Amino acid sequence: MPRNAFYAQSGGVTAVINASAAGVIEAARKHRKHIGKVYAGRNGILGALQEDLIDTGKESPAAIRALRNTPGGAFGSARYKLKGVEKGGREYERLIEVFKAHDIGYFFYNGGNDSADTCLKVSQMSATMGYPIIAVHVPKTVDNDLPITDCCPGFGSVAKYVATSMMEAVLDVESMAKTSTKVFILEVMGRHAGWITAATGLAQRKPGQGPHILLFPEVPWNEEAFLARVEETVKRYGYCAVGASEGLQDAGGKFLSESGLKDAFGHAQLGGVAPMLASLVQSKLKLKQHWAVADYLQRSARHIASRTDLEQSYAVGKAAVELAVKGMNSVMPTIVRASSRPYRWKVGVAKLSDVANVEKKMPREFITADGFHITDKCRKYLTPLISGEAFPPFEDGLPQYVRLKNAAVRKKTGAWSP
Amino acid sequence: MPRNAFYAQSGGVTAVINASAAGVIEAARKHRKHIGKVYAGRNGILGALQEDLIDTGKESPAAIRALRNTPGGAFGSARYKLKGVEKGGREYERLIEVFKAHDIGYFFYNGGNDSADTCLKVSQMSATMGYPIIAVHVPKTVDNDLPITDCCPGFGSVAKYVATSMMEAVLDVESMAKTSTKVFILEVMGRHAGWITAATGLAQRKPGQGPHILLFPEVPWNEEAFLARVEETVKRYGYCAVGASEGLQDAGGKFLSESGLKDAFGHAQLGGVAPMLASLVQSKLKLKQHWAVADYLQRSARHIASRTDLEQSYAVGKAAVELAVKGMNSVMPTIVRASSRPYRWKVGVAKLSDVANVEKKMPREFITADGFHITDKCRKYLTPLISGEAFPPFEDGLPQYVRLKNAAVRKKTGAWSP
Repeated sequence: MPRNAFYAQSGGVTAVINASAAGVIEAARKHRKHIGKVYAGRNGILGALQEDLIDTGKESPAAIRALRNTPGGAFGSARYKLKGVEKGGREYERLIEVFKAHDIGYFFYNGGNDSADTCLKVSQMSATMGYPIIAVHVPKTVDNDLPITDCCPGFGSVAKYVATSMMEAVLDVESMAKTSTKVFILEVMGRHAGWITAATGLAQRKPGQGPHILLFPEVPWNEEAFLARVEETVKRYGYCAVGASEGLQDAGGKFLSESGLKDAFGHAQLGGVAPMLASLVQSKLKLKQHWAVADYLQRSARHIASRTDLEQSYAVGKAAVELAVKGMNSVMPTIVRASSRPYRWKVGVAKLSDVANVEKKMPREFITADGFHITDKCRKYLTPLISGEAFPPFEDGLPQYVRLKNAAVRKKTGAWSP
Repeated sequence: MPRNAFYAQSGGVTAVINASAAGVIEAARKHRKHIGKVYAGRNGILGALQEDLIDTGKESPAAIRALRNTPGGAFGSARYKLKGVEKGGREYERLIEVFKAHDIGYFFYNGGNDSADTCLKVSQMSATMGYPIIAVHVPKTVDNDLPITDCCPGFGSVAKYVATSMMEAVLDVESMAKTSTKVFILEVMGRHAGWITAATGLAQRKPGQGPHILLFPEVPWNEEAFLARVEETVKRYGYCAVGASEGLQDAGGKFLSESGLKDAFGHAQLGGVAPMLASLVQSKLKLKQHWAVADYLQRSARHIASRTDLEQSYAVGKAAVELAVKGMNSVMPTIVRASSRPYRWKVGVAKLSDVANVEKKMPREFITADGFHITDKCRKYLTPLISGEAFPPFEDGLPQYVRLKNAAVRKKTGAWSP
């Protein structure tokens, strides 16, 4: 007898997380012998806790196909870490209660490091509680910091966006530097790992072109060295472009964005490594500066998604179902790189116990000796990940993004409060 | 006998100003009987003052064609206002000296309001000085604030970029609002006119979808009304997305970004209406917020340029040459809208004396009565301008943007200092 599946999106969304959802749902529809309905959690795991399930079976094949083209989390995602066994495990028990009520035998959790851990625990707890569930993690994170997998679905698209944006901004600044802005700073995501910062470096196609300086969270902030390099770069090339991680920190691990900047109300300044660096450049070097903070624009930029990333996102969703119906439990599909030039990849598999809570930072050999740029080895790693375009359909000048019906499943358990 | 032409880019560059350059150069190459060489100013008008001319004849037809696909200013642009007759007119005299030395009979100036004025004065001064030059202004400004012309080349592309980016960010925020960010603010350009802010409003396809609030420079800032609207929107829809002009100002015309915010060093906070609004939302409403400042990314985003805008940018460059060889002086090609649905336009012509130094703001009827959004009339005006895609060619995952040889012309006059 087939059993139902539960799929949820977790943590920060990406331009292509919905492609993984499409992979899961379309693959499940091909495995009717094993999988009955696919329920999605409304607002991620909260949907399971609150028994707020969405019946994806009510969506047309065309709507599910259109998920490939649509950024954000189509069912809602959540930043919510389940309270563990040390807190009594009540939330896990509640999950199992809801899963039991809806005959859910498969748990697909689409997220990053934290959610890999949650996924593992669901599998363990369900076994302990005598209602075994096959739990498969579907990798997703713009931060590219999951271990074992060669890269993380979601990263390639943000990388393509920041590299393209930096390349365009550099042409702008370069062409006006004679009488206008001399220093341009683009702040990008990646609080602990510098992968996205590294990707801005791809915009430099020849020595001397911007970006000239990259500021990684892995390299301790050094104000003096930074200012000296900016000054030297402006002298030599007429302008300086900088890609900076939001997670820039000093040798003691203290974030620059927490360095005590206050606004006029006396409130700590909200985020913004870029304006801080710009202020420094202005005051110490007296150079005209401009800065940009791409924020959510970068991780939702489906219009400039990487085709490679899109295909991999779909593939891990599909593979998760195929692993599950084979009875593989507590695993995660991975991307395995067979070769860089030409780029060849396939889907592999990792044990969740090897994945959960491990963070993959930039290796030292991907960062130049002076700490301010990426090496050729890094370029070789990154380039295939941003390759290929996958423009969404457009209508009246704007992308056609699908909005699902997200029909609720009738509740079977009582109300629950955390 | 043919005479040479001088072309210069002026002021802030756009995603498509180089398409106008291509229009000028390709049209000139078809009018060999009237136009000999086309010289471009290196760094705009500075190139003329310093006799730093670029021979565009050294560029291949393929390179000139590729200008259509390349953002920024291919010859360099300048923020430089010529000192007028009241300052002795020495700079205008110098221009004429250089033009005489290089047998320049045509002046094509590609810019906004200020440069339209400069272009007019060049024509007047050259006549006064007995060396008449035909001066034609080629319109360009992301601000969309030139009079007479229905729209300004450069605007449609930034409009398409901000509308697309807002639409994508809204899908992101909406899908995570349950447990994460409730208020998102995107700051866009347009210091005096709210056209770009208006374009972010196109991302709202149905009532209730973001962006919910637009903050125009034309509508005096009202903190209380803004906070009340944010709170109400979050209550009703679970989140609130805001498009805000960098030029937001109070009833007295004082910019919000000059409102005395200081950083920890005691320096005035640099730009950033978005972080200021976010800080306000956080402190007054205790709502989690995020903000983005697109800055140069928006005006250089050739990868998501509007095909309409691209075609119009090329068309005004080509038309400028055609007007000039017909002997029309002190004029500017304009975009004339024949109909909105279906969209039909043609190139018209305006007298520079009617254009120079006039600023076209958003008409009141384009803004809703409450001041917080755009009307259907505004949508009808804006939609055709962002319609159509014109993706650049890509290589290794990034746009292929051309860099010209920009070969210098041998100098014929002595050194000059301002």
